[in-house]
Amino acid sequence: MDYTNMSPKKVRELIRQGKITGNTAGMCAGYAQANLCILPKDLAYDFLLFSQRNPRPCPILEVSDVGSRFLKTIAPDADIANDIPKYRVYENGVLTGEYTSVEKFWRNDFVSFLIGCSFSFESELIAANVPIRHIEEGRNVPMYITNIECEPAGIFHGKMVVSMRPLPPDKVVTAVAATAAMPKVHGAPIHIGDPSVIGIDDISKPDFGDAVTVNPGEIPVFWPCGVTPQSAVMSAKPPIAITHSPGHMLITDVKNVELKY
Amino acid sequence: MDYTNMSPKKVRELIRQGKITGNTAGMCAGYAQANLCILPKDLAYDFLLFSQRNPRPCPILEVSDVGSRFLKTIAPDADIANDIPKYRVYENGVLTGEYTSVEKFWRNDFVSFLIGCSFSFESELIAANVPIRHIEEGRNVPMYITNIECEPAGIFHGKMVVSMRPLPPDKVVTAVAATAAMPKVHGAPIHIGDPSVIGIDDISKPDFGDAVTVNPGEIPVFWPCGVTPQSAVMSAKPPIAITHSPGHMLITDVKNVELKY
Repeated sequence: MDYTNMSPKKVRELIRQGKITGNTAGMCAGYAQANLCILPKDLAYDFLLFSQRNPRPCPILEVSDVGSRFLKTIAPDADIANDIPKYRVYENGVLTGEYTSVEKFWRNDFVSFLIGCSFSFESELIAANVPIRHIEEGRNVPMYITNIECEPAGIFHGKMVVSMRPLPPDKVVTAVAATAAMPKVHGAPIHIGDPSVIGIDDISKPDFGDAVTVNPGEIPVFWPCGVTPQSAVMSAKPPIAITHSPGHMLITDVKNVELKY
Repeated sequence: MDYTNMSPKKVRELIRQGKITGNTAGMCAGYAQANLCILPKDLAYDFLLFSQRNPRPCPILEVSDVGSRFLKTIAPDADIANDIPKYRVYENGVLTGEYTSVEKFWRNDFVSFLIGCSFSFESELIAANVPIRHIEEGRNVPMYITNIECEPAGIFHGKMVVSMRPLPPDKVVTAVAATAAMPKVHGAPIHIGDPSVIGIDDISKPDFGDAVTVNPGEIPVFWPCGVTPQSAVMSAKPPIAITHSPGHMLITDVKNVELKY
Protein backbone atom coordinates (compact mmCIF):
# COMPACT_ATOMS: atom_id res chain seq x y z
CA MET A 1 0.00 0.00 0.00
CA ASP A 2 1.37 3.41 -0.96
CA TYR A 3 0.49 6.07 1.59
CA THR A 4 2.44 8.85 -0.11
CA ASN A 5 -0.55 10.42 -1.80
CA MET A 6 -3.28 9.35 0.63
CA SER A 7 -5.07 12.09 2.59
CA PRO A 8 -4.12 12.66 6.26
CA LYS A 9 -7.71 11.90 7.30
CA LYS A 10 -7.64 8.50 5.56
CA VAL A 11 -4.20 7.55 6.94
CA ARG A 12 -5.29 8.54 10.46
CA GLU A 13 -8.33 6.26 10.06
CA LEU A 14 -6.09 3.35 9.11
CA ILE A 15 -3.86 4.09 12.09
CA ARG A 16 -6.89 4.25 14.39
CA GLN A 17 -8.06 0.87 13.05
CA GLY A 18 -4.64 -0.62 13.78
CA LYS A 19 -3.92 -1.16 10.07
CA ILE A 20 -0.84 1.09 10.15
CA THR A 21 1.55 0.63 13.09
CA GLY A 22 4.89 1.55 11.49
CA ASN A 23 6.63 4.88 11.19
CA THR A 24 5.02 7.70 9.24
CA ALA A 25 8.04 8.95 7.24
CA GLY A 26 7.01 9.76 3.68
CA MET A 27 3.26 9.42 4.29
CA CYS A 28 0.82 12.08 3.00
CA ALA A 29 3.37 14.03 0.95
CA GLY A 30 3.19 17.77 1.56
CA TYR A 31 1.39 17.56 4.91
CA ALA A 32 3.07 18.48 8.18
CA GLN A 33 3.69 15.83 10.82
CA ALA A 34 3.86 16.67 14.51
CA ASN A 35 5.63 15.49 17.66
CA LEU A 36 3.38 14.72 20.64
CA CYS A 37 3.94 15.30 24.34
CA ILE A 38 1.10 14.67 26.82
CA LEU A 39 1.48 15.91 30.40
CA PRO A 40 -0.83 16.35 33.40
CA LYS A 41 -2.29 19.86 33.77
CA ASP A 42 -0.18 20.67 36.83
CA LEU A 43 2.95 20.56 34.62
CA ALA A 44 1.37 22.18 31.56
CA TYR A 45 2.21 25.77 32.51
CA ASP A 46 5.88 24.99 33.03
CA PHE A 47 6.03 23.11 29.73
CA LEU A 48 4.19 25.81 27.78
CA LEU A 49 6.53 28.42 29.30
CA PHE A 50 9.57 26.26 28.43
CA SER A 51 8.38 26.19 24.83
CA GLN A 52 7.69 29.94 24.84
CA ARG A 53 11.22 30.56 26.06
CA ASN A 54 12.78 28.04 23.68
CA PRO A 55 10.72 28.36 20.49
CA ARG A 56 13.56 27.23 18.18
CA PRO A 57 13.82 23.66 19.53
CA CYS A 58 10.22 23.60 20.79
CA PRO A 59 7.85 25.21 18.26
CA ILE A 60 4.30 24.53 19.46
CA LEU A 61 1.76 23.97 16.69
CA GLU A 62 -1.24 23.39 18.97
CA VAL A 63 -2.15 22.73 22.60
CA SER A 64 -5.32 20.77 23.42
CA ASP A 65 -7.86 21.85 25.99
CA VAL A 66 -7.45 20.13 29.36
CA GLY A 67 -8.73 16.56 29.22
CA SER A 68 -9.67 16.77 25.54
CA ARG A 69 -8.48 14.08 23.15
CA PHE A 70 -9.26 16.36 20.20
CA LEU A 71 -7.61 19.26 18.44
CA LYS A 72 -9.23 22.27 16.77
CA THR A 73 -6.76 23.56 14.22
CA ILE A 74 -4.09 21.25 12.85
CA ALA A 75 -6.17 18.04 12.68
CA PRO A 76 -9.74 18.69 13.81
CA ASP A 77 -11.06 15.11 13.59
CA ALA A 78 -7.98 13.38 14.98
CA ASP A 79 -8.19 11.33 18.18
CA ILE A 80 -4.98 12.07 20.05
CA ALA A 81 -5.17 8.80 21.98
CA ASN A 82 -5.50 6.56 18.89
CA ASP A 83 -4.31 8.32 15.73
CA ILE A 84 -0.57 7.92 16.22
CA PRO A 85 0.86 4.53 15.20
CA LYS A 86 3.02 4.09 18.28
CA TYR A 87 3.13 5.84 21.66
CA ARG A 88 5.61 5.75 24.51
CA VAL A 89 4.53 5.95 28.14
CA TYR A 90 7.06 7.30 30.64
CA GLU A 91 6.57 7.03 34.39
CA ASN A 92 8.92 9.05 36.60
CA GLY A 93 11.18 9.52 33.59
CA VAL A 94 11.39 5.77 32.80
CA LEU A 95 9.97 4.28 29.60
CA THR A 96 7.43 1.73 30.81
CA GLY A 97 5.91 0.65 27.51
CA GLU A 98 5.05 1.24 23.85
CA TYR A 99 1.42 1.12 22.76
CA THR A 100 -0.64 1.59 19.59
CA SER A 101 -3.38 3.28 21.66
CA VAL A 102 -3.18 5.20 24.91
CA GLU A 103 -6.94 5.35 25.43
CA LYS A 104 -6.72 3.19 28.56
CA PHE A 105 -4.21 5.61 30.13
CA TRP A 106 -6.29 8.73 29.42
CA ARG A 107 -6.96 11.13 32.28
CA ASN A 108 -9.22 14.16 32.57
CA ASP A 109 -6.23 16.31 33.49
CA PHE A 110 -4.12 15.50 30.42
CA VAL A 111 -2.93 18.31 28.13
CA SER A 112 -1.52 17.44 24.68
CA PHE A 113 1.24 19.49 23.08
CA LEU A 114 1.78 19.10 19.32
CA ILE A 115 5.20 20.29 18.27
CA GLY A 116 6.61 21.09 14.81
CA CYS A 117 8.87 18.49 13.20
CA SER A 118 11.87 18.74 10.89
CA PHE A 119 10.12 16.48 8.33
CA SER A 120 8.39 19.72 7.25
CA PHE A 121 11.52 21.72 6.55
CA GLU A 122 13.24 18.73 4.93
CA SER A 123 10.51 18.68 2.30
CA GLU A 124 11.28 22.36 1.63
CA LEU A 125 15.02 21.60 1.40
CA ILE A 126 14.39 18.80 -1.08
CA ALA A 127 12.18 21.14 -3.13
CA ALA A 128 15.11 23.59 -3.18
CA ASN A 129 17.52 20.87 -4.43
CA VAL A 130 19.41 20.70 -1.14
CA PRO A 131 20.65 17.11 -0.68
CA ILE A 132 19.78 15.41 2.64
CA ARG A 133 22.40 12.83 3.51
CA HIS A 134 20.47 10.71 6.00
CA ILE A 135 17.65 10.29 3.50
CA GLU A 136 20.15 9.38 0.75
CA GLU A 137 21.70 6.82 3.09
CA GLY A 138 18.39 5.51 4.44
CA ARG A 139 19.21 6.39 8.04
CA ASN A 140 17.72 8.39 10.89
CA VAL A 141 19.03 11.97 11.15
CA PRO A 142 22.06 12.27 13.49
CA MET A 143 21.29 14.25 16.68
CA TYR A 144 23.69 15.65 19.27
CA ILE A 145 23.45 17.11 22.78
CA THR A 146 25.13 20.55 22.65
CA ASN A 147 26.59 22.85 25.30
CA ILE A 148 23.79 25.37 24.61
CA GLU A 149 21.69 25.72 27.76
CA CYS A 150 17.95 26.12 27.17
CA GLU A 151 16.16 28.85 29.10
CA PRO A 152 14.72 26.92 32.05
CA ALA A 153 11.03 27.16 33.01
CA GLY A 154 9.81 25.68 36.28
CA ILE A 155 10.89 22.03 36.47
CA PHE A 156 12.01 21.90 32.83
CA HIS A 157 15.61 22.57 31.84
CA GLY A 158 18.44 21.05 29.82
CA LYS A 159 20.86 21.40 26.92
CA MET A 160 19.62 22.01 23.38
CA VAL A 161 19.64 18.94 21.13
CA VAL A 162 20.42 19.58 17.46
CA SER A 163 20.09 17.61 14.24
CA MET A 164 22.90 17.74 11.67
CA ARG A 165 22.88 17.70 7.88
CA PRO A 166 26.23 17.89 6.03
CA LEU A 167 26.01 20.19 3.01
CA PRO A 168 28.23 21.14 0.08
CA PRO A 169 29.31 24.79 0.62
CA ASP A 170 27.23 26.03 -2.32
CA LYS A 171 24.01 24.75 -0.71
CA VAL A 172 24.43 26.30 2.75
CA VAL A 173 22.90 29.70 1.99
CA THR A 174 19.89 28.14 0.26
CA ALA A 175 19.37 25.81 3.23
CA VAL A 176 19.55 28.70 5.72
CA ALA A 177 17.11 30.85 3.75
CA ALA A 178 14.63 28.01 3.10
CA THR A 179 14.46 26.94 6.74
CA ALA A 180 14.58 30.48 8.19
CA ALA A 181 11.26 31.00 6.41
CA MET A 182 9.69 28.23 8.53
CA PRO A 183 10.04 29.26 12.20
CA LYS A 184 7.13 26.98 13.20
CA VAL A 185 9.25 23.96 12.35
CA HIS A 186 12.57 24.92 14.00
CA GLY A 187 13.53 27.64 11.50
CA ALA A 188 17.10 28.51 10.52
CA PRO A 189 20.18 26.57 11.67
CA ILE A 190 21.54 27.33 15.14
CA HIS A 191 25.12 26.75 14.00
CA ILE A 192 27.11 26.26 10.80
CA GLY A 193 30.52 24.57 10.72
CA ASP A 194 32.94 23.55 13.50
CA PRO A 195 31.00 21.18 15.79
CA SER A 196 33.26 21.90 18.79
CA VAL A 197 31.90 25.46 19.03
CA ILE A 198 28.60 24.04 20.30
CA GLY A 199 30.20 21.31 22.40
CA ILE A 200 30.14 18.40 19.94
CA ASP A 201 33.44 16.51 20.25
CA ASP A 202 32.96 13.76 17.67
CA ILE A 203 30.54 14.22 14.81
CA SER A 204 30.77 10.51 13.97
CA LYS A 205 29.16 9.66 17.32
CA PRO A 206 25.67 11.19 17.55
CA ASP A 207 23.81 10.98 20.85
CA PHE A 208 20.60 9.97 19.07
CA GLY A 209 19.86 8.67 15.55
CA ASP A 210 22.50 7.40 13.15
CA ALA A 211 25.90 8.70 12.00
CA VAL A 212 25.98 9.79 8.34
CA THR A 213 28.82 10.28 5.88
CA VAL A 214 30.41 13.74 5.90
CA ASN A 215 32.43 14.07 2.68
CA PRO A 216 35.64 16.13 2.48
CA GLY A 217 34.78 19.81 2.02
CA GLU A 218 31.22 19.43 3.28
CA ILE A 219 30.01 21.72 6.06
CA PRO A 220 28.00 20.31 8.97
CA VAL A 221 24.88 22.41 9.52
CA PHE A 222 23.01 22.14 12.85
CA TRP A 223 19.31 22.81 13.46
CA PRO A 224 17.44 22.98 16.80
CA CYS A 225 15.75 19.61 17.30
CA GLY A 226 12.40 18.50 18.71
CA VAL A 227 14.17 15.95 20.89
CA THR A 228 15.12 18.93 23.12
CA PRO A 229 11.70 19.24 24.83
CA GLN A 230 11.39 15.44 25.10
CA SER A 231 14.78 15.35 26.77
CA ALA A 232 13.75 18.18 29.13
CA VAL A 233 10.60 16.26 30.05
CA MET A 234 12.49 13.03 30.69
CA SER A 235 15.02 14.83 32.95
CA ALA A 236 12.16 16.36 34.95
CA LYS A 237 10.84 12.83 35.64
CA PRO A 238 7.12 13.64 35.80
CA PRO A 239 4.88 10.93 37.31
CA ILE A 240 3.50 10.34 33.81
CA ALA A 241 4.23 11.59 30.30
CA ILE A 242 3.12 10.17 26.97
CA THR A 243 4.93 10.88 23.70
CA HIS A 244 4.91 9.52 20.17
CA SER A 245 7.50 6.84 19.48
CA PRO A 246 10.33 8.33 17.37
CA GLY A 247 9.31 8.55 13.71
CA HIS A 248 5.69 7.64 14.52
CA MET A 249 4.11 11.07 14.22
CA LEU A 250 0.69 12.70 14.10
CA ILE A 251 -0.07 13.48 10.46
CA THR A 252 -1.85 16.84 10.39
CA ASP A 253 -4.19 18.49 7.88
CA VAL A 254 -1.79 21.43 7.57
CA LYS A 255 0.44 21.61 4.51
CA ASN A 256 4.15 22.17 5.09
CA VAL A 257 4.06 25.34 3.02
CA GLU A 258 1.31 26.76 5.26
CA LEU A 259 3.82 26.72 8.11
CA LYS A 260 5.62 29.60 6.43
CA TYR A 261 2.84 32.01 7.37
CA MET B 1 15.31 66.92 27.56
CA ASP B 2 15.56 64.81 24.40
CA TYR B 3 15.16 61.12 25.09
CA THR B 4 15.31 60.04 21.44
CA ASN B 5 18.95 59.00 21.52
CA MET B 6 19.25 58.10 25.20
CA SER B 7 19.93 54.44 26.10
CA PRO B 8 17.02 52.31 27.37
CA LYS B 9 18.91 51.67 30.63
CA LYS B 10 19.27 55.41 31.29
CA VAL B 11 15.64 56.18 30.43
CA ARG B 12 14.43 53.34 32.67
CA GLU B 13 16.52 54.84 35.50
CA LEU B 14 14.84 58.23 35.02
CA ILE B 15 11.44 56.52 35.00
CA ARG B 16 12.32 54.61 38.19
CA GLN B 17 13.35 57.87 39.86
CA GLY B 18 10.02 59.45 38.90
CA LYS B 19 11.70 61.92 36.54
CA ILE B 20 9.77 60.62 33.52
CA THR B 21 6.04 59.99 33.96
CA GLY B 22 4.73 60.70 30.46
CA ASN B 23 4.27 58.43 27.47
CA THR B 24 7.28 56.75 25.91
CA ALA B 25 6.51 57.33 22.20
CA GLY B 26 9.69 58.28 20.35
CA MET B 27 12.05 57.49 23.21
CA CYS B 28 15.24 55.44 22.63
CA ALA B 29 15.00 55.37 18.85
CA GLY B 30 15.51 51.89 17.39
CA TYR B 31 14.70 50.01 20.60
CA ALA B 32 11.58 47.89 21.01
CA GLN B 33 8.93 48.90 23.51
CA ALA B 34 6.65 46.35 25.15
CA ASN B 35 3.11 46.08 26.50
CA LEU B 36 2.78 44.75 30.07
CA CYS B 37 0.16 42.48 31.59
CA ILE B 38 0.61 41.16 35.15
CA LEU B 39 -1.67 38.39 36.38
CA PRO B 40 -1.75 36.03 39.37
CA LYS B 41 -0.18 32.61 38.71
CA ASP B 42 -3.52 30.80 38.77
CA LEU B 43 -4.51 32.66 35.57
CA ALA B 44 -1.07 32.53 33.94
CA TYR B 45 -1.56 29.21 32.14
CA ASP B 46 -4.82 30.35 30.52
CA PHE B 47 -3.24 33.63 29.45
CA LEU B 48 -0.08 32.00 28.08
CA LEU B 49 -2.26 29.51 26.18
CA PHE B 50 -4.44 32.37 24.86
CA SER B 51 -1.31 34.03 23.51
CA GLN B 52 -0.01 30.74 22.05
CA ARG B 53 -3.33 30.30 20.24
CA ASN B 54 -3.50 33.94 19.12
CA PRO B 55 0.10 34.88 18.39
CA ARG B 56 -0.81 37.55 15.83
CA PRO B 57 -2.58 39.94 18.26
CA CYS B 58 -0.68 38.63 21.31
CA PRO B 59 3.03 38.09 20.50
CA ILE B 60 4.79 37.33 23.78
CA LEU B 61 8.33 38.71 24.03
CA GLU B 62 9.05 37.41 27.55
CA VAL B 63 7.33 35.93 30.59
CA SER B 64 8.80 36.50 34.06
CA ASP B 65 9.31 33.78 36.62
CA VAL B 66 6.53 33.59 39.22
CA GLY B 67 6.87 36.39 41.77
CA SER B 68 9.94 37.88 40.09
CA ARG B 69 9.99 41.59 39.30
CA PHE B 70 12.90 41.03 36.91
CA LEU B 71 13.35 39.84 33.34
CA LYS B 72 16.22 37.85 31.83
CA THR B 73 16.22 38.59 28.14
CA ILE B 74 14.60 41.75 26.83
CA ALA B 75 15.62 44.12 29.68
CA PRO B 76 17.74 42.26 32.26
CA ASP B 77 18.14 45.10 34.77
CA ALA B 78 14.61 46.47 34.54
CA ASP B 79 12.35 46.49 37.61
CA ILE B 80 8.90 45.55 36.31
CA ALA B 81 7.16 47.28 39.23
CA ASN B 82 8.91 50.64 38.76
CA ASP B 83 10.35 51.04 35.26
CA ILE B 84 7.16 51.87 33.40
CA PRO B 85 6.03 55.53 33.64
CA LYS B 86 2.39 54.74 34.33
CA TYR B 87 0.54 51.58 35.36
CA ARG B 88 -3.13 50.72 35.52
CA VAL B 89 -4.57 48.48 38.22
CA TYR B 90 -7.79 46.59 37.41
CA GLU B 91 -9.81 44.80 40.07
CA ASN B 92 -12.56 42.46 38.86
CA GLY B 93 -12.29 44.08 35.43
CA VAL B 94 -12.70 47.63 36.75
CA LEU B 95 -9.91 50.24 36.50
CA THR B 96 -9.28 51.23 40.12
CA GLY B 97 -6.29 53.51 39.68
CA GLU B 98 -3.22 54.70 37.79
CA TYR B 99 0.18 54.64 39.49
CA THR B 100 3.81 55.43 38.68
CA SER B 101 4.92 52.41 40.74
CA VAL B 102 3.12 49.18 41.54
CA GLU B 103 5.64 48.03 44.13
CA LYS B 104 3.09 48.28 46.93
CA PHE B 105 0.70 45.98 45.06
CA TRP B 106 3.34 43.33 44.36
CA ARG B 107 2.52 39.71 45.23
CA ASN B 108 4.65 36.58 45.27
CA ASP B 109 2.27 34.91 42.83
CA PHE B 110 2.44 37.59 40.11
CA VAL B 111 3.54 36.67 36.59
CA SER B 112 4.48 39.42 34.12
CA PHE B 113 3.83 39.09 30.40
CA LEU B 114 5.70 41.43 28.05
CA ILE B 115 4.02 41.67 24.66
CA GLY B 116 5.30 43.06 21.35
CA CYS B 117 4.07 46.49 20.30
CA SER B 118 3.31 48.06 16.92
CA PHE B 119 5.77 50.91 17.67
CA SER B 120 8.41 48.40 16.48
CA PHE B 121 6.89 47.71 13.09
CA GLU B 122 6.02 51.38 12.56
CA SER B 123 9.70 52.22 12.75
CA GLU B 124 10.30 49.64 9.99
CA LEU B 125 7.48 51.14 7.90
CA ILE B 126 8.94 54.62 8.25
CA ALA B 127 12.36 53.25 7.26
CA ALA B 128 10.69 51.82 4.14
CA ASN B 129 9.11 55.20 3.26
CA VAL B 130 5.58 54.05 4.09
CA PRO B 131 3.62 57.06 5.43
CA ILE B 132 1.86 56.62 8.77
CA ARG B 133 -1.19 58.84 8.97
CA HIS B 134 -1.75 58.97 12.74
CA ILE B 135 1.87 60.03 13.25
CA GLU B 136 1.53 62.69 10.52
CA GLU B 137 -1.63 63.95 12.21
CA GLY B 138 -0.25 63.71 15.76
CA ARG B 139 -2.95 61.31 16.90
CA ASN B 140 -3.20 57.88 18.50
CA VAL B 141 -3.62 55.01 16.01
CA PRO B 142 -7.31 54.15 15.33
CA MET B 143 -8.33 50.74 16.67
CA TYR B 144 -11.46 48.69 15.97
CA ILE B 145 -13.18 45.65 17.44
CA THR B 146 -13.66 43.18 14.56
CA ASN B 147 -15.96 40.19 14.03
CA ILE B 148 -12.91 37.88 14.11
CA GLU B 149 -13.24 35.57 17.09
CA CYS B 150 -9.98 34.80 18.92
CA GLU B 151 -9.30 31.17 19.79
CA PRO B 152 -10.45 31.00 23.41
CA ALA B 153 -8.24 29.56 26.18
CA GLY B 154 -9.66 28.88 29.62
CA ILE B 155 -11.32 32.06 30.91
CA PHE B 156 -9.91 34.27 28.12
CA HIS B 157 -11.86 34.92 24.91
CA GLY B 158 -13.05 37.78 22.74
CA LYS B 159 -12.96 39.43 19.32
CA MET B 160 -9.69 40.49 17.71
CA VAL B 161 -8.92 44.19 17.95
CA VAL B 162 -7.07 45.69 14.97
CA SER B 163 -5.20 48.92 14.29
CA MET B 164 -5.68 50.68 10.94
CA ARG B 165 -3.29 52.65 8.76
CA PRO B 166 -4.60 54.10 5.46
CA LEU B 167 -2.08 53.66 2.63
CA PRO B 168 -1.72 54.79 -0.97
CA PRO B 169 -2.14 51.70 -3.20
CA ASP B 170 1.53 51.72 -4.25
CA LYS B 171 2.68 51.36 -0.60
CA VAL B 172 0.52 48.38 0.37
CA VAL B 173 2.84 45.62 -0.84
CA THR B 174 5.87 47.21 0.84
CA ALA B 175 3.91 47.55 4.08
CA VAL B 176 2.81 43.89 3.98
CA ALA B 177 6.32 42.62 3.26
CA ALA B 178 8.00 44.84 5.87
CA THR B 179 5.63 43.85 8.68
CA ALA B 180 5.35 40.16 7.65
CA ALA B 181 9.08 39.97 8.41
CA MET B 182 8.34 40.90 12.07
CA PRO B 183 6.00 38.22 13.48
CA LYS B 184 7.10 39.03 17.07
CA VAL B 185 5.43 42.44 16.78
CA HIS B 186 2.09 41.44 15.17
CA GLY B 187 3.51 40.65 11.70
CA ALA B 188 1.61 41.13 8.43
CA PRO B 189 -1.82 42.77 8.16
CA ILE B 190 -4.86 40.61 8.96
CA HIS B 191 -6.97 42.40 6.33
CA ILE B 192 -6.55 44.84 3.44
CA GLY B 193 -9.40 46.98 2.12
CA ASP B 194 -13.18 46.88 2.73
CA PRO B 195 -13.65 47.31 6.51
CA SER B 196 -17.08 45.63 6.49
CA VAL B 197 -15.49 42.26 5.67
CA ILE B 198 -14.10 42.14 9.22
CA GLY B 199 -17.17 43.68 10.83
CA ILE B 200 -16.17 47.34 10.90
CA ASP B 201 -19.22 49.43 9.96
CA ASP B 202 -17.81 52.95 10.14
CA ILE B 203 -14.10 53.55 9.77
CA SER B 204 -14.50 57.12 11.03
CA LYS B 205 -15.57 55.81 14.43
CA PRO B 206 -12.78 53.73 15.99
CA ASP B 207 -13.51 51.82 19.21
CA PHE B 208 -10.18 52.96 20.69
CA GLY B 209 -7.69 55.69 19.77
CA ASP B 210 -8.42 58.50 17.33
CA ALA B 211 -9.98 58.68 13.86
CA VAL B 212 -7.53 59.65 11.10
CA THR B 213 -8.01 61.04 7.61
CA VAL B 214 -8.52 58.46 4.86
CA ASN B 215 -7.95 60.23 1.53
CA PRO B 216 -9.82 59.23 -1.66
CA GLY B 217 -8.13 56.22 -3.26
CA GLU B 218 -6.31 55.19 -0.09
CA ILE B 219 -6.67 51.63 1.15
CA PRO B 220 -7.29 50.93 4.83
CA VAL B 221 -4.86 48.28 6.06
CA PHE B 222 -5.59 46.44 9.32
CA TRP B 223 -3.07 44.82 11.67
CA PRO B 224 -3.72 42.61 14.73
CA CYS B 225 -3.46 44.83 17.80
CA GLY B 226 -2.05 44.35 21.30
CA VAL B 227 -5.28 45.74 22.78
CA THR B 228 -6.77 42.31 21.98
CA PRO B 229 -5.20 40.49 24.97
CA GLN B 230 -5.92 43.47 27.27
CA SER B 231 -9.53 43.37 26.15
CA ALA B 232 -9.66 39.60 26.76
CA VAL B 233 -8.25 40.10 30.25
CA MET B 234 -10.73 42.85 31.10
CA SER B 235 -13.67 40.71 29.92
CA ALA B 236 -12.49 37.85 32.12
CA LYS B 237 -12.65 40.18 35.16
CA PRO B 238 -9.77 38.67 37.17
CA PRO B 239 -9.58 39.70 40.86
CA ILE B 240 -6.47 41.71 39.97
CA ALA B 241 -4.56 42.59 36.81
CA ILE B 242 -1.93 45.26 36.26
CA THR B 243 -1.09 46.70 32.83
CA HIS B 244 0.87 49.63 31.47
CA SER B 245 -1.18 52.75 30.81
CA PRO B 246 -1.69 53.17 27.02
CA GLY B 247 1.43 54.63 25.40
CA HIS B 248 3.45 54.25 28.62
CA MET B 249 5.52 51.21 27.69
CA LEU B 250 8.49 49.22 28.93
CA ILE B 251 11.51 50.27 26.87
CA THR B 252 13.57 47.14 26.23
CA ASP B 253 17.24 46.57 25.39
CA VAL B 254 16.21 44.76 22.19
CA LYS B 255 16.50 46.63 18.89
CA ASN B 256 13.46 46.61 16.64
CA VAL B 257 15.46 45.00 13.84
CA GLU B 258 16.42 42.12 16.16
CA LEU B 259 12.73 41.21 16.29
CA LYS B 260 13.03 40.01 12.70
CA TYR B 261 15.05 36.97 13.78
